[in-house]
Amino acid sequence: MNSFGTLFRITTFGESHGVGIGVTIDGCPAGLPVTAETIQTALDRRRPGQSDLTTPRREADRVEVLSGLFEGQTTGTPIGLFIRNQDQASHDYSHIEHAYRPSHADYTYDAKYGRRDYRGGGRSSARETAARVAAGAVAAELLAHYGIKASSYVSQVGAVRVPVGYEELDLGLIESNTVRCPHPETAERMAELIRQTRDRHDTVGGIVTGVVRGVPAGLGEPVFDKLHADLGKAMLSINAVKGFEYGSGFDGTLLFGSEHNDAFYTDESGAVRTRTNHSGGIQGGISNGQDIYFRVAFKPVATILQPQTTINDQGEEITLAGKGRHDPCVLPRAVPIVDAMTNLVLADMLLRSRSSKL
Amino acid sequence: MNSFGTLFRITTFGESHGVGIGVTIDGCPAGLPVTAETIQTALDRRRPGQSDLTTPRREADRVEVLSGLFEGQTTGTPIGLFIRNQDQASHDYSHIEHAYRPSHADYTYDAKYGRRDYRGGGRSSARETAARVAAGAVAAELLAHYGIKASSYVSQVGAVRVPVGYEELDLGLIESNTVRCPHPETAERMAELIRQTRDRHDTVGGIVTGVVRGVPAGLGEPVFDKLHADLGKAMLSINAVKGFEYGSGFDGTLLFGSEHNDAFYTDESGAVRTRTNHSGGIQGGISNGQDIYFRVAFKPVATILQPQTTINDQGEEITLAGKGRHDPCVLPRAVPIVDAMTNLVLADMLLRSRSSKL
Amino acid sequence: MNSFGTLFRITTFGESHGVGIGVTIDGCPAGLPVTAETIQTALDRRRPGQSDLTTPRREADRVEVLSGLFEGQTTGTPIGLFIRNQDQASHDYSHIEHAYRPSHADYTYDAKYGRRDYRGGGRSSARETAARVAAGAVAAELLAHYGIKASSYVSQVGAVRVPVGYEELDLGLIESNTVRCPHPETAERMAELIRQTRDRHDTVGGIVTGVVRGVPAGLGEPVFDKLHADLGKAMLSINAVKGFEYGSGFDGTLLFGSEHNDAFYTDESGAVRTRTNHSGGIQGGISNGQDIYFRVAFKPVATILQPQTTINDQGEEITLAGKGRHDPCVLPRAVPIVDAMTNLVLADMLLRSRSSKL
Amino acid sequence: MNSFGTLFRITTFGESHGVGIGVTIDGCPAGLPVTAETIQTALDRRRPGQSDLTTPRREADRVEVLSGLFEGQTTGTPIGLFIRNQDQASHDYSHIEHAYRPSHADYTYDAKYGRRDYRGGGRSSARETAARVAAGAVAAELLAHYGIKASSYVSQVGAVRVPVGYEELDLGLIESNTVRCPHPETAERMAELIRQTRDRHDTVGGIVTGVVRGVPAGLGEPVFDKLHADLGKAMLSINAVKGFEYGSGFDGTLLFGSEHNDAFYTDESGAVRTRTNHSGGIQGGISNGQDIYFRVAFKPVATILQPQTTINDQGEEITLAGKGRHDPCVLPRAVPIVDAMTNLVLADMLLRSRSSKL
Repeated sequence: MNSFGTLFRITTFGESHGVGIGVTIDGCPAGLPVTAETIQTALDRRRPGQSDLTTPRREADRVEVLSGLFEGQTTGTPIGLFIRNQDQASHDYSHIEHAYRPSHADYTYDAKYGRRDYRGGGRSSARETAARVAAGAVAAELLAHYGIKASSYVSQVGAVRVPVGYEELDLGLIESNTVRCPHPETAERMAELIRQTRDRHDTVGGIVTGVVRGVPAGLGEPVFDKLHADLGKAMLSINAVKGFEYGSGFDGTLLFGSEHNDAFYTDESGAVRTRTNHSGGIQGGISNGQDIYFRVAFKPVATILQPQTTINDQGEEITLAGKGRHDPCVLPRAVPIVDAMTNLVLADMLLRSRSSKL
Repeated sequence: MNSFGTLFRITTFGESHGVGIGVTIDGCPAGLPVTAETIQTALDRRRPGQSDLTTPRREADRVEVLSGLFEGQTTGTPIGLFIRNQDQASHDYSHIEHAYRPSHADYTYDAKYGRRDYRGGGRSSARETAARVAAGAVAAELLAHYGIKASSYVSQVGAVRVPVGYEELDLGLIESNTVRCPHPETAERMAELIRQTRDRHDTVGGIVTGVVRGVPAGLGEPVFDKLHADLGKAMLSINAVKGFEYGSGFDGTLLFGSEHNDAFYTDESGAVRTRTNHSGGIQGGISNGQDIYFRVAFKPVATILQPQTTINDQGEEITLAGKGRHDPCVLPRAVPIVDAMTNLVLADMLLRSRSSKL
Repeated sequence: MNSFGTLFRITTFGESHGVGIGVTIDGCPAGLPVTAETIQTALDRRRPGQSDLTTPRREADRVEVLSGLFEGQTTGTPIGLFIRNQDQASHDYSHIEHAYRPSHADYTYDAKYGRRDYRGGGRSSARETAARVAAGAVAAELLAHYGIKASSYVSQVGAVRVPVGYEELDLGLIESNTVRCPHPETAERMAELIRQTRDRHDTVGGIVTGVVRGVPAGLGEPVFDKLHADLGKAMLSINAVKGFEYGSGFDGTLLFGSEHNDAFYTDESGAVRTRTNHSGGIQGGISNGQDIYFRVAFKPVATILQPQTTINDQGEEITLAGKGRHDPCVLPRAVPIVDAMTNLVLADMLLRSRSSKL
Repeated sequence: MNSFGTLFRITTFGESHGVGIGVTIDGCPAGLPVTAETIQTALDRRRPGQSDLTTPRREADRVEVLSGLFEGQTTGTPIGLFIRNQDQASHDYSHIEHAYRPSHADYTYDAKYGRRDYRGGGRSSARETAARVAAGAVAAELLAHYGIKASSYVSQVGAVRVPVGYEELDLGLIESNTVRCPHPETAERMAELIRQTRDRHDTVGGIVTGVVRGVPAGLGEPVFDKLHADLGKAMLSINAVKGFEYGSGFDGTLLFGSEHNDAFYTDESGAVRTRTNHSGGIQGGISNGQDIYFRVAFKPVATILQPQTTINDQGEEITLAGKGRHDPCVLPRAVPIVDAMTNLVLADMLLRSRSSKL
């Protein structure tokens, strides 16, 4: 289904080349200050056409609030949001109506549904994530009310990596450049790689690192809905994501238990802390009060402006070249999407934790 | 909550040192041949005490079928399974009643619930996965009915890796050694590393690779419940898992789009296939008929038989050493758990796909 | 939450005096012929201002299709529908901003949420049912594809009752009068009672009888989600409904088992049938292939154009009189809502039944 | 599926003639005092063989706690309960293996699943409700912690009715007789009718009235999961239930709005109250702090000890007579089941209400 979350639950709808993209947010507590501007600000971070590193497609992406807000606050009723697609002129889609674009979802949608909206990616388009970002903005307000803040940034593009961990970065610098990498020298090298890739009509992937601060101990559900399991699902549900790891992640497989374990201690303020944080702020699926951090792998996007060999829906070999204006690298625009999904997961867990005790 | 799946849904219950571990399986179609033996065989693969590489704890882990099977078949009603804990003698747990073991869930459970069953890991113990393996055995039968088969194996222990991809391995060899690695020379080196680690009273992590063959095109739900997102959540919900990647995974971030895209072609039988499989058998969250493969990172388990510094529930520093019989490396026993979770996800998606079309 | 259904699931949003009322329909199979006209036709049945028996408020209630339909068919992706509220001029709501209207939800919403959209009923308004009717039209198409048809009608207004059972009525006459009662003489008496009530500035309740034909044996889930339990919940979720009974209902409590049991027989065509149908077409929560029938009790609506004593949100006694244009009797307009909820329940059960067997 | 509830969720399993009946309770907050005795006491109220009015079948119905309780309290983890069936000796079921008993679920289960456990009702047996009663006992403890108490009683058997409303009864008398009717003279007449019916080898239906006191204003969800809609579904999911009404119910259809509306006032203590309670304590689906009351119609049970004509699974006409020991009237034993379902709904709504506000 097209819903995400248990108590803070969103349902998205809409296609890339239809009327627009929408979302309902069900379960947000009443009394939270939220306005259309709160949501628009988040959407503006995701919007195409922000810099020369992203698609030059310019879309205003104006959110319309359809329900759920009254006198500047949430009312506890579902919040309906809608973002109309611009530029719905009748284009010619005949070149892709019957084509299966490589590494797109054309073939699999046909296999599943027996038909598809061939005017673009339809529901499989990353345009659907606009709805998530809009909903995530509401979740972020809820978390802010409780002192929780998620920040993510681009930590790798192709083989260009930030050479230090998140603890050594000033996350206030994320928006200081168009790559959304808070390590300025690396950001420049990433930008250069993206430009070169764009000029070769190719695409490049990379990694977004997520960090959440201010999470109290006790969020997350044991067994299946572990905090990191829901975060992982959330991230893997973003277009082009191929992997997720948290805390020590895949590298942690190389450590011995005696090296990996995080020793508890009590700090001067009396708070429980750990001397290392290989656990990534989560133990047994439940937050332990330390920073939560994770990494999300994005493949290079499939739409390249080069001719490729593929087949059509009759199984015949054809040659296809991407047209139009596309992102050579989705990483900079993926940052607000990772933030949104992080916020949605934590808002849900925050509400769920309210029934842990009498 | 303690449930997993939408249409093929399991709910597990029970603690490591309580009466036992159980599971209900709701939504399994009627008419599937399943007996207690089907389930017992799967449980025997996960059981402790199988070799010198795993904990010498010997537990019979006999499954009792409480409901849902009649005359050797499923009836469509919920299947209740229960595995009694052995050896519930009244042990002395006073050394851990108030201690927060490093990198265990003692502290986070206390934070969440205000109390915990301190006689062991309780619900956070890997013993809970016995219930998943039992349920997964039923899911495997359902998949087998439709020609789908999941196989996973240990592909890395510490820094010892299988040097080739899954396509070059004979997956029939997985059970040929106690490590459950189908590359015999590597299996021996892994076994040696595990023995050395055990003798040092330490633990070691590694990677399990999962492979699913025979999946028809069209399984998986778009947007949030993408096939790989649900697989990722399933794997991340297993104890000690720190990361998940599918297809090209994290390494795929280093490729350009022109290298990463999987070209479609029609094979001699008329079937749609792709020349490469960086997509890992999933495009847009829906299976495309190629092999599904993924990798799951396991940290070294937290229980080590060495003294460690930590705190108690009064925040006072204490020293603690693991006692008893524990696995120096969970990887060999993790294989049937990865299989089980894979089967549960695919069984659910198989049923869900039945409402895609008229 | 604001969702209904498991596999054919709707989520409604919007308030009576906000931007409008919307709904997303998730899980409708692909390939079903549906257009905006399909939905508009259903909405027109519910629209106010159809006759002198209903509120003279005239609202166009035009549906806008936001997503999910392409080339005249469903695509399997969520169908987004929106109906803008007319006449959102800035009215003066000061007389009710702080008042708790008798038998309305003003007080309970304040108790639950700490605030409410006081410009009308908000989410508690029957206007929300427009979204259900829109969604129900899609469900009706799905059912029609499989030969299932729900028809409901007004069987009682105040003390005026249809003197015969549904089997003796021509359900084709439901739309032949403005009361939606297929027994013309009774319809006239009902209309007269409604007009008298309206002229006294009062309101009157009544009963809607629902009938579903063409349901194959085997729909419904045992135990909790019994077909009649889900139907009952669906009906009880409609504004002003106070009771639900199916088959022999409350009167069945007066029969002995030997009178109440429905004897099976095989008819000339070889079909299994029952000689009586006290079961109302449902046994053990599962349809048995006979007609399903039930009755739904509606109270007289709370808004009366007479002065009433009540309190404000400071607990002070005040006098309040309903203003504006309201229905003296909701029964005629309730018929399409009962149809919609019936269709939603059956569409969901139809899809759920697909996983009963291999 | 076999689950009920959103946050306080139960899943039942087991068949009438299998190993036993079980339930898992997921989502109960930690720290609630609950022991096996708490549950056993509730089960004892439902047990067969309590008096000459119910089946003389004697079953101990001993509950076994499988998980979730530790040191006399809930731990927040799922509570597993199991009640073994007694007397599982190999009976001869050949007379019903192929028969479709009138007004039972034999035919519909076969239609749905293609097979059934023919040794009795299987899942469709009222024996399944033992699991609900066990779970309801835990819910009752949670409610008691917050001052909420549900009481139900037999208000009608056949045509014998309690002549006054619940407000005029002493609900402390419910257990003072075997009928569970707190109006002693009526109870005697009911008992007499039940004995006469039993002696005629027939069965008789009736009505249970439910009352809930101490519910704070604000419980219930608007729109679909209205408090009375969930109560209605809960009651309709009980075996043999044919109808549900709350507050003024079906009789309320005969009142005019000016008679039906409940005027608010502030009592001497400053509490908001209503002068009448036609609303049954619920307005807009949300509790208003007044007593909640409702009525549940039970048909005469289908198993009668008389020969009946029916068909077998080949469609051939056969004659069948009930054997064994059955209840001539389920009403007395239905009381604890109605209580259990009431408690389950309210416990769920109590937890859900925790996310209504910041």
